[in-house]
Amino acid sequence: MLINFSKMHGLGNDFVVIDAINQTVQLTAEQIKALADRHYGIGFDQLLLVEPARMGADFRYVIYNADGSEVSQCGNGARCFALFVTQKGLTNKRSIRVETDAGELVLTVNEEQLVTVDMGVPKLDPANVPLIAKQQQLQYSVDVLDRTVAFSALSMGNPHAVLQVENVATAEVEAVGAALESHSLFPERANIGFSEITGPDSLALRVYERGAGETLACGSGACAAVVAAVRLGKVTTPTTVALTGGELTIDWQGEGAPVMMSGPATFVFDGMIDI
Amino acid sequence: MLINFSKMHGLGNDFVVIDAINQTVQLTAEQIKALADRHYGIGFDQLLLVEPARMGADFRYVIYNADGSEVSQCGNGARCFALFVTQKGLTNKRSIRVETDAGELVLTVNEEQLVTVDMGVPKLDPANVPLIAKQQQLQYSVDVLDRTVAFSALSMGNPHAVLQVENVATAEVEAVGAALESHSLFPERANIGFSEITGPDSLALRVYERGAGETLACGSGACAAVVAAVRLGKVTTPTTVALTGGELTIDWQGEGAPVMMSGPATFVFDGMIDI
Repeated sequence: MLINFSKMHGLGNDFVVIDAINQTVQLTAEQIKALADRHYGIGFDQLLLVEPARMGADFRYVIYNADGSEVSQCGNGARCFALFVTQKGLTNKRSIRVETDAGELVLTVNEEQLVTVDMGVPKLDPANVPLIAKQQQLQYSVDVLDRTVAFSALSMGNPHAVLQVENVATAEVEAVGAALESHSLFPERANIGFSEITGPDSLALRVYERGAGETLACGSGACAAVVAAVRLGKVTTPTTVALTGGELTIDWQGEGAPVMMSGPATFVFDGMIDI
Repeated sequence: MLINFSKMHGLGNDFVVIDAINQTVQLTAEQIKALADRHYGIGFDQLLLVEPARMGADFRYVIYNADGSEVSQCGNGARCFALFVTQKGLTNKRSIRVETDAGELVLTVNEEQLVTVDMGVPKLDPANVPLIAKQQQLQYSVDVLDRTVAFSALSMGNPHAVLQVENVATAEVEAVGAALESHSLFPERANIGFSEITGPDSLALRVYERGAGETLACGSGACAAVVAAVRLGKVTTPTTVALTGGELTIDWQGEGAPVMMSGPATFVFDGMIDI
């Protein structure tokens, strides 16, 4: 089976994007793992399949991790998807509705390969994160390693915890991230953000991603960090989030409003593989 | 500039191979580095440019490391090159003469994507390795870390030292390799092989490559290990060499004869990139 694909990245988070509308593409987890290998395959953090919509949107997409498991939400993937369908002529629209496993998204392709993603309304109550807690609070606390840490918790379609730190450069992302990511407080585990407020409308962020460890740029993590910082009264929006891989701009008008994430997506190359 | 390329590998040592005969391709070290990045570029261990011959052979090729520096010899690259020119229709010959910076090679494409490479006659005298030593010996000795180790030394177009070890699995490849690779005995540094004799015509090998650290499969290192083992009376040829990435078969009829290396090369995908 010959498959055409594009290699893209969003702030260094790299994707193989496949048009599964004009090609018949069915991949097993084993095949996805083999494709993800950076020496023996194509190599990617995630694989994104663009499919026909099933429920009235313009498209549907499914994202897989390098181990073949499905990803419920990925802001970088959403931006790559939007640029892909625009540049490959799959749509003429600049505002694109897409069905994902985490619900419908609306994406807007601006000039200069900048894409704005409506990441949806953050869910703050513990049951929806999900987080084991009696009632919704601005911050929760947990004992991890040899200390007690405070964190915000919310869902951006996937579970996030955000810790306020003095200095992201020296934050113990690996140790604390690994311990919290799979802590029993989070029944579906969680992405753990380490957020440093760097100005009235800016923060710096490192994210330990659920099942992946520290990554260059977690889009939904950036949204979660800004929601947490706004609720704590620490920043105004639009907020610039400096991630390891580059910058995103996050806008959030407050509780009940959707989070708007703007950032770049980049084509690297087009390829064709026989699998 | 649009460039067509193929991604290939030889035992997991992965290459981007570019036809620079039918395309005009000129790359700076900066561009090569950018292409080598596995998140922002294509990703490869080495880049191989196929060029027209200058001195009467069928082709010429040049290989670059991921940092943009030139590689003088690479057995895995030679096999990928041979399969590339055959499958892409650049030649009908099954026996291909190619000019490299390390001299002319003769490559034979067999069935089943197996390629035999005439790796040339090993150079045993110290001045040609180059190795600082008064006279040619079967083995030399050097103090490294807190011990004295014995090693064979020879050139396969690039400098190799080979240590006989009891067990490759537990050999201190990283520590001893790093210390020896840039030892003052080797004016042009050296690739350091750790060779365990596993049978009358087989050995297992791990190689610390000059400037690259431990790699999955060093073709010229496999040749050097067999030459060293034959000279020490430890194996007969053809010899099977088990590298981390897979197996090569090495044939050497003794001093003055060329080393014949046979092994697989694999196409992964074809791509097109705008740089």
